[in-house]
Amino acid sequence: MDYQEVEGAREYVARLENGRDWRGQIEDFAEEEGIDAAFFFGLGAVTDAELLFYDQDVQEYNTIEFDEPFEMTPAVGNISWLYDERFAHTHAVLSREDGSTVAGHLDKATTFAGELYIREFDTTLEREHDEVTDLDLWPL
Amino acid sequence: MDYQEVEGAREYVARLENGRDWRGQIEDFAEEEGIDAAFFFGLGAVTDAELLFYDQDVQEYNTIEFDEPFEMTPAVGNISWLYDERFAHTHAVLSREDGSTVAGHLDKATTFAGELYIREFDTTLEREHDEVTDLDLWPL
Amino acid sequence: MDYQEVEGAREYVARLENGRDWRGQIEDFAEEEGIDAAFFFGLGAVTDAELLFYDQDVQEYNTIEFDEPFEMTPAVGNISWLYDERFAHTHAVLSREDGSTVAGHLDKATTFAGELYIREFDTTLEREHDEVTDLDLWPL
Repeated sequence: MDYQEVEGAREYVARLENGRDWRGQIEDFAEEEGIDAAFFFGLGAVTDAELLFYDQDVQEYNTIEFDEPFEMTPAVGNISWLYDERFAHTHAVLSREDGSTVAGHLDKATTFAGELYIREFDTTLEREHDEVTDLDLWPL
Repeated sequence: MDYQEVEGAREYVARLENGRDWRGQIEDFAEEEGIDAAFFFGLGAVTDAELLFYDQDVQEYNTIEFDEPFEMTPAVGNISWLYDERFAHTHAVLSREDGSTVAGHLDKATTFAGELYIREFDTTLEREHDEVTDLDLWPL
Repeated sequence: MDYQEVEGAREYVARLENGRDWRGQIEDFAEEEGIDAAFFFGLGAVTDAELLFYDQDVQEYNTIEFDEPFEMTPAVGNISWLYDERFAHTHAVLSREDGSTVAGHLDKATTFAGELYIREFDTTLEREHDEVTDLDLWPL
């Protein structure tokens, strides 16, 4: 396992905005505050969601779309550079009125409400193409 | 997205007590220690659970009751003031013997065992009624 | 609820290694760095997984095996001493191509890719046998 000791830097609590994309507004926040490395933790509710599943054999993402309201229980992710943009890598578990769940890599979801804790680290994390997985990963 | 930079304050690890309500004992702890703003992360096992699902159209919570044992995998939540009480807003994913899951906003669950990390912030978070969602949210 | 105030110590971001066991490489890392108490948060993808479910009546773990690829969405756990070894108590939610999920106490899973935030505490957490649950818990 490759790892890097990091120093904790700024910390934030946030309220996500109703009607805007969950991931997009985290990325806009990262841009505004100049965050180059962070982890975040969130809970809330969304409506509609596009989840990605990475096909490990074919090495491509498949998209799954859901047009319904969900609780977000929870979202865990991180902020780092992906080529020339700050990217919020976000995994989420979503639940329905009967408690049933779907989960995956969250591409898009319209926020109904959301609360976030963001912990910045005093470093820059930058993704690079990884040959083995064909994903963009951190060379730590 | 509305956000507030916060300073990290006290941190705790905790062992939840067998037989007591999961959320209730986090709120009692917050009261005992005088915690006005925190996020927490937990894992463990519970028996019975009441999950809430917020109907985004009707803007009311529906309750779903489950009378069975579950692994808690995981719980993520925060502590802040809701009117005159400290409230532990808790989302949880619960799993069964066959691995199947339910998830949602956790109202109640009887703790079998539980382990928690709590990170306090040096501020006071207080919920206020939000017109758009009819929820009590932080005015950050 | 029993709890202990802890001081935050070292923090790490990590990239889990393709092809190695998810939990095993976290334990090897803990051993290498001499970590005696920590919580960690992760996301990624695995293939194959053994989940444990604790039967609260019989007080024994049952194993469930899954031979398929999953997104890890997310993993939450902690590092502490279990008798003479560092143990990474890990709960995980796993999702499939159609978004469906399984979850539980993660015993093993072959890492495809994984990203971790680890927060160490300046204390030693050591599990001891608990009479009530027949689990190994922290005497805080």
